[in-house]
Amino acid sequence: MKRNVLIIGAGGVAQVVAHKCAQVNDRLGDLHIASRTKAKAEAIIDGVNAKGAMKVPSVFRAHAVNALSTAEVAGLIRQTGAQIVINVGSSFVNMTVLEACIETGVAYMDTAIHEDPAKICETPPWYGNYEWQRRDRCKAAGVTAILGIGFDPGVVNAWARVAEEDYFDRIDSIDIVDINAGSHGKYFATNFDPEINFREFTGTVYSWQKGAWQENTMFEVGQTWTLPVVGDQKAYLTGHDEVHSLSARYPQADVRFWMGFGDHYINVFTVLKNLGLLSEKPVKTAEGQEVIPLKLVKAVLPDPASLAPTYTGKTCIGDVIKGVKDGHPREVLIYNVADHKEAYEEVGSQGISYTAGVPPVAAALLIADGTWDVGIMANVEELDPKPFINLLNQMGLPTRIKDENGDRLLSF
Amino acid sequence: MKRNVLIIGAGGVAQVVAHKCAQVNDRLGDLHIASRTKAKAEAIIDGVNAKGAMKVPSVFRAHAVNALSTAEVAGLIRQTGAQIVINVGSSFVNMTVLEACIETGVAYMDTAIHEDPAKICETPPWYGNYEWQRRDRCKAAGVTAILGIGFDPGVVNAWARVAEEDYFDRIDSIDIVDINAGSHGKYFATNFDPEINFREFTGTVYSWQKGAWQENTMFEVGQTWTLPVVGDQKAYLTGHDEVHSLSARYPQADVRFWMGFGDHYINVFTVLKNLGLLSEKPVKTAEGQEVIPLKLVKAVLPDPASLAPTYTGKTCIGDVIKGVKDGHPREVLIYNVADHKEAYEEVGSQGISYTAGVPPVAAALLIADGTWDVGIMANVEELDPKPFINLLNQMGLPTRIKDENGDRLLSF
Repeated sequence: MKRNVLIIGAGGVAQVVAHKCAQVNDRLGDLHIASRTKAKAEAIIDGVNAKGAMKVPSVFRAHAVNALSTAEVAGLIRQTGAQIVINVGSSFVNMTVLEACIETGVAYMDTAIHEDPAKICETPPWYGNYEWQRRDRCKAAGVTAILGIGFDPGVVNAWARVAEEDYFDRIDSIDIVDINAGSHGKYFATNFDPEINFREFTGTVYSWQKGAWQENTMFEVGQTWTLPVVGDQKAYLTGHDEVHSLSARYPQADVRFWMGFGDHYINVFTVLKNLGLLSEKPVKTAEGQEVIPLKLVKAVLPDPASLAPTYTGKTCIGDVIKGVKDGHPREVLIYNVADHKEAYEEVGSQGISYTAGVPPVAAALLIADGTWDVGIMANVEELDPKPFINLLNQMGLPTRIKDENGDRLLSF
Repeated sequence: MKRNVLIIGAGGVAQVVAHKCAQVNDRLGDLHIASRTKAKAEAIIDGVNAKGAMKVPSVFRAHAVNALSTAEVAGLIRQTGAQIVINVGSSFVNMTVLEACIETGVAYMDTAIHEDPAKICETPPWYGNYEWQRRDRCKAAGVTAILGIGFDPGVVNAWARVAEEDYFDRIDSIDIVDINAGSHGKYFATNFDPEINFREFTGTVYSWQKGAWQENTMFEVGQTWTLPVVGDQKAYLTGHDEVHSLSARYPQADVRFWMGFGDHYINVFTVLKNLGLLSEKPVKTAEGQEVIPLKLVKAVLPDPASLAPTYTGKTCIGDVIKGVKDGHPREVLIYNVADHKEAYEEVGSQGISYTAGVPPVAAALLIADGTWDVGIMANVEELDPKPFINLLNQMGLPTRIKDENGDRLLSF
């Protein structure tokens, strides 16, 4: 049994985490949220209270923290008595927050791979560069550290594990397809922090195929996928966290990640990239000012959180898994459809934030009740997927499966 | 008789002016070139010497000047003994340089309308906002001030005057068409200072039609023009200096300016504009740095001067003039074709700079020998066009005419 949750971060995903924690605070205990700017954390709590989201009257407190400082985070953990830390701050702070959790012996979660601000696209497997180097120390300290427990990575990893357990004797390929068929009505916007968003697409695209890392460039390999609700959608081979852990568990399988992009997004991205405006290296203006182009691009783009009120349409994220069962070839699609407007109405965030923010709260419940309190570092596919999927079915992110037996809710 | 030339500016056009002045320095006397950064002016003189461009051994000296200071420019005019100032610096310095010429009683030339850095696209006629307000003072001081003596404005204005004198009893329309069919081989670049280049296209597009100012937006009105050498080319109604003076002399005529753009240019421009990256208003990054987006865009784009060595292809700029002669409708095209590679080989600059930089040197010769030393402020169409066109024919920018009698060199 673990109790009391500390949320690190105060962006769109943190807001979803806050609302969802509040809805089950009878099982999670005290809630805390900490951000570099305390006012942002306070605003999230105000939103939670405005919705009357707290299931039972209890503590929900805002804090200021510099999450790049392990000592500050550890101090806050001790001060709040939190036994579960949900880190949904910038990917740059993951390792300092994890270190604080190891130091204080509490459970850690994040939703994206650690990034060094000075590096783009490190060598695969990405988890090997930072996270997995701390596996032994987590084990020695008995610290539960769940990596990448958002939607993708996260839920899509659990689906692969379900496929392994129930649907295949041998998995030959896992294609994770992420389609946002929603519309935000702006000329151009990214669905989360533009700086992190663009970093995903400016480096090498790694995929795991034929037992080896394959390298491509962004938008080099595209394919039209036909998915439930959203229909035919063009998606492109993209480097993504889960490819780097699933390929370790399923080395015999091809593991690829596909992200949907409209022609307009690709055009704007291509113009910005080719002009050098997505660079993180400072350039000097004629007036002698040093400017990092990507920081300026971030500044002129809409704040992702501002998109939520008018966002409409659906997302569909699925695992297309092929392999063999009982000697016969088989193909299964395991997927979720989320709705931007419904997400906004429930928690004040758009659908992309919603799909990323609900899963760590489900995981927190599983750590709180002991089910997932495994005392080691784990990627999601290493954990029992079924209680997690059952919880998500109740929490607004139902898993569906489509195979030779039809299209239906998946539960256990 | 006026002698000794001071060139203000050290960009691509200034380089052409320097080379062309050197080629006729027996008639112009001492040469001086001044820029905010003295090293840039020195580099231009080095290039002139490397080409052996000086016709006779004489003075060609570099100076540092802050051209936003009338006192500094006036001091430099006195120090150098220059009687002719060719201002090809940024459009922002025009009025301070003109004031220095009025104060010292020397001849002034520029190639583009004055701009206030804080304003985009002022009310028409643009010359009325700054230049023409100084007409009386030029006249009182006996100062020859020739406005807009580049190619367009400049040569195209002289062509309109030729049409008035020799080809029409009544002019009904003047369409100035500017096509650059050259290729610089870069993903994207502007042909002159990006900051000034983009400012041309972000404001209201003014044209003079049916006796009144018409307002459009950039790329709203497009038309395919068929021109000699460059063939069919799409061009767009664009706000441009010469429309603002020609409409005063030919108020009965429609006066329009059309600039050729490829789809790629329009796409990049549209993306940058819609994202707010062409704005001159500072934005604040998440880190609190204030940045003017347009300054950063300028910094990431290729230096226009760097395009010259590999630039290939032709430019074609022409006046399509319609009207009536001897009771019959008539249409005449007066035009020039320039070649980027030939320009580079002669003066080290690309064709766009070449077409802008040669005309003020022809004008300097006409001021030096008294022909154009009119002692007043004048737009080019107010001056005798024929000696000017004859000089340009000899200096690398031949004027051709195409009408019912064929396509031929125009000379007098």
